[in-house]
Amino acid sequence: MHSIPEYTSIFLEYLNKHALEKEPKNLYEPINYILQLGGKRLRPVLTLMACELFEKDYKDALDAALAVEIFHNFSLVHDDIMDDAPLRRGEETVHEKWDINTGILSGDAMLIRAYQLFENYEGATFKELAKLFSKTAIEVCEGQQYDVDFETRDDVTIPEYMKMIEYKTAVLVGAALKMGAIVAGASKSCQEGIYNYGRDLGLAFQLQDDYLDAFGDPESFGKQVGGDIIENKKTFLYLTALANSNKDDAQQLEHFFSISPADPTDKIETVKQQFLDSGAAKATEEEIAKYTQKAFTALDNVDISEDKKETLRLFGQGLMKRTY
Amino acid sequence: MHSIPEYTSIFLEYLNKHALEKEPKNLYEPINYILQLGGKRLRPVLTLMACELFEKDYKDALDAALAVEIFHNFSLVHDDIMDDAPLRRGEETVHEKWDINTGILSGDAMLIRAYQLFENYEGATFKELAKLFSKTAIEVCEGQQYDVDFETRDDVTIPEYMKMIEYKTAVLVGAALKMGAIVAGASKSCQEGIYNYGRDLGLAFQLQDDYLDAFGDPESFGKQVGGDIIENKKTFLYLTALANSNKDDAQQLEHFFSISPADPTDKIETVKQQFLDSGAAKATEEEIAKYTQKAFTALDNVDISEDKKETLRLFGQGLMKRTY
Repeated sequence: MHSIPEYTSIFLEYLNKHALEKEPKNLYEPINYILQLGGKRLRPVLTLMACELFEKDYKDALDAALAVEIFHNFSLVHDDIMDDAPLRRGEETVHEKWDINTGILSGDAMLIRAYQLFENYEGATFKELAKLFSKTAIEVCEGQQYDVDFETRDDVTIPEYMKMIEYKTAVLVGAALKMGAIVAGASKSCQEGIYNYGRDLGLAFQLQDDYLDAFGDPESFGKQVGGDIIENKKTFLYLTALANSNKDDAQQLEHFFSISPADPTDKIETVKQQFLDSGAAKATEEEIAKYTQKAFTALDNVDISEDKKETLRLFGQGLMKRTY
Repeated sequence: MHSIPEYTSIFLEYLNKHALEKEPKNLYEPINYILQLGGKRLRPVLTLMACELFEKDYKDALDAALAVEIFHNFSLVHDDIMDDAPLRRGEETVHEKWDINTGILSGDAMLIRAYQLFENYEGATFKELAKLFSKTAIEVCEGQQYDVDFETRDDVTIPEYMKMIEYKTAVLVGAALKMGAIVAGASKSCQEGIYNYGRDLGLAFQLQDDYLDAFGDPESFGKQVGGDIIENKKTFLYLTALANSNKDDAQQLEHFFSISPADPTDKIETVKQQFLDSGAAKATEEEIAKYTQKAFTALDNVDISEDKKETLRLFGQGLMKRTY
């Protein structure tokens, strides 16, 4: 087993070696651009790690890892168009640097390219990987659609929200790990266990993202603290606060989530206070701990050494300790 | 073997049975909408036909045929966004009826859905189908990118144009047929022969589309006659006329293809006359005949009865006889 930084640099080297220097330039340059923008490379690293957890050389999982990372970036390119986002990782988004049409078409080519990377695996493995990939990719699309739908709905329930973040974010973390297990030829129950570990950790991670958006350290949090509140985003914090508040408080919260003041400072402060007073902040912390624990419990069904399980638990705890 | 209308109605029944009545509605309704808009269903019919040509029940090819049709419609949904087209088959385009974001996301889901349909085939066949599909899909994206690039280039060559229409249109016709052959377990050389037949017929078909756009019967041609001339589209007719004209005539033609008069009647008439005078119209007719013949020659390497080859030739001739 290697360390996370080692897997990351191994992956980056592979990614750079596989930049597509092909014609037409206007199709492939945006693809290389977004793939070089950086990011934690968390998902492909998990694919490599899972492959070695199940006793196979990580090298065999490099193409699957690359497919996962290309798919993730495909979804960023198309989502950034939908969200009209000018920046991604501090740099111009593809549709901003080129145009919307380039973003659409380069994204399409990335999705297809991801499938092609599985072709380096033999028949049965190829099919298992492509099948998991398609199922996951469709779920990511459905999650994105729910997210878009929620913007204009005022009756979103907490279970609906959980399903949305599961599809939009968590399933790809599970799938990244499961792909490593498939490449390594792990048993079905091991595959399922490692998938559940990843999915539940992904849920905890997304809930923590919601939490840190309101209560994170402004110094270290990458995005604007209070960004979700400014955008009236119906996060777990908001939906829980709404459910736990009396009628008056709930109405006030709904009012705040219907306005967009030029100076949002007061709005952010009042809403955050309500998140605390209603117990929503505490409930979110508990939910994060619950899903982290659920992720660790999923490892019970995974047939790997206690040492390796400890590595996965440390990885999960590390991920959840961030204040950024 | 069935007749084309029989295959068409068999396919339509299968398509209707496989409409996706799933949540989220905003993702799946646009997919069902575009798939129900009609069209000739030429590509899926070719898949079914090819399967029976190689002695296997067409039923086995229904999922591959559906994948081809869904992919074709995916490309229409995304292309219509890029071309800002309000209408498709006389009805509102998806991004017009819903919005651009819906068009992007539903298109993405269609591309993934197409891959999923191959899952009904066993390992080796699945891989062959998915591999051909990915190769073709990437080429279609590249063709679309070349088409976009050509709009702002004034040095497009005839070979470049041929490569563009090959990728954007012809390869999918070849792939539709080859998929039927793959499902039927035909030999590699048969697969290649039927692919080449389809690709070359696709090229002839697209060249004929260019030709009919200028010289088709206004009564029966589905689109506005002269539409390419109005849009200053660099078709085979235009590029050949440019190459065959003296300097003055070429400059006049280039001038006409740089303006967009409110009343295009004179422009269309003058340009058409130049297509005729320069010999470009005749050269296009010859090129259509050449690729139709090339398609038929490709059948020499296909190990099927003379009867069946005659069916394919009649199909090709029928396609090329259209005045619309």
